[in-house]
Amino acid sequence: MSRRAVLAEALGSAMLFATVIGSGIMAERLAGGNVALALLGNTLATGAMLFVLVTMLAPVSGAHMNPAVTLVLRLRGQIGTDTAIAYAGAQIAGGILGVWLAHLMFEVSVFQLSAKMRFGPGQWLAEAIATFGLVLTILGTAKTRPGSIPASVALYITAAYWFTASTSFANPAITIARALSDSFAGIAPACVPGFIAAQLVGAVAAHLVADAIFTEPSAEPL
Amino acid sequence: MSRRAVLAEALGSAMLFATVIGSGIMAERLAGGNVALALLGNTLATGAMLFVLVTMLAPVSGAHMNPAVTLVLRLRGQIGTDTAIAYAGAQIAGGILGVWLAHLMFEVSVFQLSAKMRFGPGQWLAEAIATFGLVLTILGTAKTRPGSIPASVALYITAAYWFTASTSFANPAITIARALSDSFAGIAPACVPGFIAAQLVGAVAAHLVADAIFTEPSAEPL
Amino acid sequence: MSRRAVLAEALGSAMLFATVIGSGIMAERLAGGNVALALLGNTLATGAMLFVLVTMLAPVSGAHMNPAVTLVLRLRGQIGTDTAIAYAGAQIAGGILGVWLAHLMFEVSVFQLSAKMRFGPGQWLAEAIATFGLVLTILGTAKTRPGSIPASVALYITAAYWFTASTSFANPAITIARALSDSFAGIAPACVPGFIAAQLVGAVAAHLVADAIFTEPSAEPL
Amino acid sequence: MSRRAVLAEALGSAMLFATVIGSGIMAERLAGGNVALALLGNTLATGAMLFVLVTMLAPVSGAHMNPAVTLVLRLRGQIGTDTAIAYAGAQIAGGILGVWLAHLMFEVSVFQLSAKMRFGPGQWLAEAIATFGLVLTILGTAKTRPGSIPASVALYITAAYWFTASTSFANPAITIARALSDSFAGIAPACVPGFIAAQLVGAVAAHLVADAIFTEPSAEPL
Repeated sequence: MSRRAVLAEALGSAMLFATVIGSGIMAERLAGGNVALALLGNTLATGAMLFVLVTMLAPVSGAHMNPAVTLVLRLRGQIGTDTAIAYAGAQIAGGILGVWLAHLMFEVSVFQLSAKMRFGPGQWLAEAIATFGLVLTILGTAKTRPGSIPASVALYITAAYWFTASTSFANPAITIARALSDSFAGIAPACVPGFIAAQLVGAVAAHLVADAIFTEPSAEPL
Repeated sequence: MSRRAVLAEALGSAMLFATVIGSGIMAERLAGGNVALALLGNTLATGAMLFVLVTMLAPVSGAHMNPAVTLVLRLRGQIGTDTAIAYAGAQIAGGILGVWLAHLMFEVSVFQLSAKMRFGPGQWLAEAIATFGLVLTILGTAKTRPGSIPASVALYITAAYWFTASTSFANPAITIARALSDSFAGIAPACVPGFIAAQLVGAVAAHLVADAIFTEPSAEPL
Repeated sequence: MSRRAVLAEALGSAMLFATVIGSGIMAERLAGGNVALALLGNTLATGAMLFVLVTMLAPVSGAHMNPAVTLVLRLRGQIGTDTAIAYAGAQIAGGILGVWLAHLMFEVSVFQLSAKMRFGPGQWLAEAIATFGLVLTILGTAKTRPGSIPASVALYITAAYWFTASTSFANPAITIARALSDSFAGIAPACVPGFIAAQLVGAVAAHLVADAIFTEPSAEPL
Repeated sequence: MSRRAVLAEALGSAMLFATVIGSGIMAERLAGGNVALALLGNTLATGAMLFVLVTMLAPVSGAHMNPAVTLVLRLRGQIGTDTAIAYAGAQIAGGILGVWLAHLMFEVSVFQLSAKMRFGPGQWLAEAIATFGLVLTILGTAKTRPGSIPASVALYITAAYWFTASTSFANPAITIARALSDSFAGIAPACVPGFIAAQLVGAVAAHLVADAIFTEPSAEPL
């Protein structure tokens, strides 16, 4: 485990989560009540920042910025337990700092709790599918076209903001951090455990499915 | 024919069609009646997911996710008949599963039939042109710049959602799957055969035109 | 001059101009009177299709699809006079066919003339700047990073639809073709000569400026 | 210092700032009062033009188009003092020319002063964070994946228009130039010094943080 890598996870998570929350506040303020327009702004900013951060930080730390990704890479033996724990701590701490910076920029109360209820079978299925797709994209693209990982992760989340009923949190650290923001992108604290459980189910499922599709090269490429 | 390849076609079609239907439901719910805004969300999600899936799955199965593409590659002798049949089955079955998963996420009835009538000469011409362009893009880009196929397919469909009068289904499997969703992206079952016929005409036309343009290298490149 | 190259110019222009006109009609129909939303749809489709066509056709014909580009490459001695004339003819004929196909798809009268007046110093300056920037992008990027030409051309036009007061026609063939469509993207026939004159001024200016910036490599790269 | 490089900085800044101001005017005129829609058009155009200009001009001059970037590269010893001064002059002069060209295209008064007040701790923090992120993206991506700099810079600004409370000027030259336009993207002259001071703080912070993350390669890449 390198100190630089842990710092990269903290800084990347701070920038990513500030983007998610900040663009949510901006979009909600400007959209005049049209939620589709607000989600467009939120999507554009999040996807763009993901490309930037994964491109820049992947060679340093892997650019996980997501404990579900860190967990799966630990399960696959690609990182050690110490690294995984340090990463997850850096992701959560850095991410919360990012949320608070967004609040400071938009001159709202720094310390908030979201009141937005997000729960039920549809939401949980959505989070499981969203995280399944994200982890499969990372594992699969790493096998077939690693240079495309920044674009693929950014575009996967761009799609997932729209095709999943939960707008795709797909990340336990961001779920915790969003609970601390009573804004467009927030989630009530009581709803956090359900979301995280669904995300971990989806992540582990992707870990298993990936080996069924990607382990050996296909005999019949295009 | 590899088992992994067939699985990749099924999984890719499930994710793609869940994206088409899911983002259609999300966009329609949020857009407050503005159809251009709904189509923007639907387009963004579909194009983004196509890039992700073609990048990840092309080295495994070719990432057709479309029986019209599979048919043309069979006509060109690039895949065998057994593979073509297995692919088409996987695309339709996987795609229908994706539609149902979208319905489950958005907590609407799983089993639906669309009531949206889509027919007439303009619509059929649109589907023929849409599929012609998609197949030509795949065949031509494979000759001139194969590494750009994921971006080109994603951006072709992004354009085609807007420039064709039918919003570009361009895929017999997705036409069948959309008949099972009474939502923004649906099509009434009675309209399915007309769409599929037009798509196959366009696909075969592209197969023929491609050889007139791309067979031998130009003597005078830029 | 290769027959394939001329065919590529005709087909590419048909697909590009069908996209410009078709997405203009679609966007105007769906946008409920909000012109910014209509222009967003029109921009997205045009930029996306440009990437697809330049990627696929540049190795065959150079993918000019624009007589102003063809003229500048003739001035620079990169193509012969016969090729330039054949290209320009193919661009105009193919482009008009594309407009008519768009009209057929959207079930409006095939043969139309636009009534949309576009003229005045601001509009002409806009067309000169738009074409200057397009030609400079092509010539400059060919010197510094030729593999990025498809993305750069697509994104240049994406920007130019918004930053120029004329929404950036930047192409004599598309100016003629748009005169044949009484829709969002049209231009009244009487306004065509002014636009084309401005475009040619901008194109020749870019041809001259390009040599002042790009001829010899900089002594001090980043 | 090469004459071509200084010309590239001037021309690039003219095109970039004409895009920022021109697309701001266009977007505001068309958006019917919906500011989120106006910001979407402004964002799309700015991000797209940044990709085009950085791709084309980086091999000539580095494509800074931003005195904060030039300052940091001077601090890091990558350019000399003479070059830095010539660049900053070219960026400001070229940029102001670009603003005036935008005014001419849109047929508004060429010489204007903005009345839009932008100040306060939230705005200044936003500018510091915006510029910190931009400079870190440039320095970090240059270490880890230099070929992605054009896309990363374009997408960073795309995100920053939405996640920072100030819509991310992040550039002292553009701050001065925007003061000369009483439009969507303007800033009152009295607010310029506060913005520039915040930008320089952010830029220098990124210069320091970059060495803590990027100097030596990580022991544990993904």
